[in-house]
Formats: sequence, C-alpha cells, structure tokens
Amino acid sequence: MNAMTPIVSAFSWVPDFARGQVRDLRVRWALEEAGLPYQTDLLTPGPQSPDYLAHQPFGQVPAFQDGDIDLFESGAIVLHIAERSPALMPSDAVGRSRTISWMFAALNTLEPPIQSLGEIDFFHADQDWAKARRPALVAWVQKRLSELAARLGDNPYLDSDRFTAGDLLMVTVLRIIERTDLVAAEPKLDAYLKRCVARPAFQKALAAQMADFTGAPPS
Amino acid sequence: MNAMTPIVSAFSWVPDFARGQVRDLRVRWALEEAGLPYQTDLLTPGPQSPDYLAHQPFGQVPAFQDGDIDLFESGAIVLHIAERSPALMPSDAVGRSRTISWMFAALNTLEPPIQSLGEIDFFHADQDWAKARRPALVAWVQKRLSELAARLGDNPYLDSDRFTAGDLLMVTVLRIIERTDLVAAEPKLDAYLKRCVARPAFQKALAAQMADFTGAPPS
Repeated sequence: MNAMTPIVSAFSWVPDFARGQVRDLRVRWALEEAGLPYQTDLLTPGPQSPDYLAHQPFGQVPAFQDGDIDLFESGAIVLHIAERSPALMPSDAVGRSRTISWMFAALNTLEPPIQSLGEIDFFHADQDWAKARRPALVAWVQKRLSELAARLGDNPYLDSDRFTAGDLLMVTVLRIIERTDLVAAEPKLDAYLKRCVARPAFQKALAAQMADFTGAPPS
Repeated sequence: MNAMTPIVSAFSWVPDFARGQVRDLRVRWALEEAGLPYQTDLLTPGPQSPDYLAHQPFGQVPAFQDGDIDLFESGAIVLHIAERSPALMPSDAVGRSRTISWMFAALNTLEPPIQSLGEIDFFHADQDWAKARRPALVAWVQKRLSELAARLGDNPYLDSDRFTAGDLLMVTVLRIIERTDLVAAEPKLDAYLKRCVARPAFQKALAAQMADFTGAPPS
C-alpha cells in the first residue's frame, strides 16, 4: 500500500440486514476482478463531514480516489476500473458498448423496481401501504427478470461467455432481493447469479466488506 | 442522412402526460449539443418485435445504432455521444471522471426517488397506498434536492461553468417532477433547471420528440 493505492470509502457499521449489500461491495469486487489493491476509508453512517461531502455530495458510500481522479457513484467507479482492466470490459468499441449498456441497464432499469421492493421488505413490510403496493411491484420485477432471463438464454454471462462489469452490477442488483424467491423462479437467472457469486473475486470482496464492520452504530 | 447517420428509437405515440418525458429525449438532446444528425425508428408502445428486442432486451426506448455500435439505455447512449464531443464532456481524465460521476448520480441516486414520486403523481394519486407513501418519498426527494443545490452553489452547472452530459441527465430527471413545487423550493436549482432547458439544443430536441408523436395508440 502507498499513496497511489486507490481509496474506497465504506461504512464501519451498518445494521445486520444491510451487511453484504452496501454499494462499496461493487467497487471492491471490481478491484478484485482486476487484481488491483485498495485501501478503505471507513465512515460511520449518518451526516458526513464537509471534507467527505466535497468528495461525495450526497454523503453516501462509495467514494473513490485514485491519484488525482476523484469519483463518486458505484457505477462510475466500476466503469473507471473496467476501463483499466480487460477482466471487466472488452477493449474494442463494440464490446465496450455492450458492457456499458448492461451496466446502465442494471442500475437504471433493474435496480429501481428491485430496490423499491427491497425497501418494502426491509423497512415497511408491516405497513398497510406497503402491503397494498407490493403485488404490483413484484409483477414489475418479475417482468424485468423474465426479460433478462430471455436475453441471457443458455449463456453463462450477459456478454455470452465473457464476464464483464455489466454482470458485476447486475448481480449486485439481483442480490438485493435474495430473500425472495423471485430470482429462483427463473432457473437460468438463478444459475447465473450462483455462477457469478461463486467467483473468487466476489467472495473475497464480500469477506472484506464484512470484515470492515468493526465499528459501533452512530450515537 | 445516410446509412451512417445514427438511429434512435422513439415512440410514435404516448399518453399526453408522458410527452416530453420519454427517455429518447436525453439522446436527442445529447446529439443536438454535439451537433450530430440522427434519424428515428418510431415504435408503437407495447410488446415489441423479436428484431427490436435483439437491440433492446426490455422493449424500451431508446435504442441506438451508430455504424456497428449497438447500444441501449439512455445513460449508455449519452455517454457514447459524450465520448465523441467536447460539448458534453471534458477530454482530460479528471474532468471526464467528474462528468461520469454526475451521470450516474442523476440516474442512480436522484432518479429512483424522483421517478417513484412521479409514478405516484401520474398513475396512483387517488390510491390509499400512494397517499400514505407520498410524504416520506417527498422528504427523500427534498433531501436529495437540497444536497444537490448545496453542491451546485452559485455555479451555473454541476461542473462549475461548463455544461456536461451530467447536467443533461440531471435536468431530464428533475423535469420528471416539474408539476410539483419541489425544485422551485430550491431557488438555485430552479434557476439551474431553467438555464439548462433554455439551451437551444434542449428546445430543438424537445420539439423533435413532440413532432414525432404522429401515431395512433396501440390497438
């Protein structure tokens, strides 16, 4: 480790249900796939310092510093890493476009309904509005998962036989609803999810996030 | 126009409330800022052909073809255009990182709560669950808008005095709730939104989307 090792921000404490879900996992996973070392800047959840907000205007994690490059948003950081590693993105323009399309599809087409469903199940399951809203949200998620499974077909990865940053983001989105049976209802997608999380780089990243929960809850 | 003019997919009909909001607007605006001509592939909303699904696995618009480059997701397409035009992104690595961070922030941090609020107001305003859910969603959107306004400060654009693809996406997200007073409650953000939509490229793109609503509703 030295001053040029990239720095990823993460939380030193989150509630149990969120452990393994915090978005710095995406960045850790990308760095592991690329074989790049990193160091962490561990924060307590809640209001952040002006210094941190200068790097991350919304007080979220992850933020990322790589030399004079200063990035926020997990999608932007994963793209930055993917542009430096053939382990995450083909280098030709056509293959690059496919990867980037899948990255945005994960974060802007799949994640919104999946995250809304996850929030209901994590935070609001007992509330009347959530019970009334949930079935339509489930139907929306099922439609997207079915379309995704149809495109995946019998390929191991979204870009055929090559794992990319598109899979990386997609899998972190699918994991948000891992306590439901929605992904399992699509056998090809279920196998895809299991295939991706079995990758040593994912396991290493997940273990590293879990090991960093060494702090106390915000007072 | 010739075979090498990029092709953007769009709808030939949507309900009145959605006119001026469909996501191909982002791509049209980016192309206008970049000074690039385009042609449209106009679709009727609803189930799409296998041929179209080969380009856009979720049957959404926009999809984009530029020679042998085949892209989907408005964010991915705007990034592709931005990489080819200094009108949308600085060419140095540091400036590029800032633009890409804002692009993902627009689509993955601001759009999810704003789109959820827009869906309640457009589709579910009379339903009990929506009335119960709306206040917390409004508070979440207000928090994000306040953080965004704090970062913007007195700058004309998110990247200081330079308009980028980050502004372009952010403004299309803020427009989703233009019928609420939430953006107006943040005067600097309100001025920013007005400054951006006054750009000739936005006005030209909006007029082009509106002019393409020449079709009939799906039967």
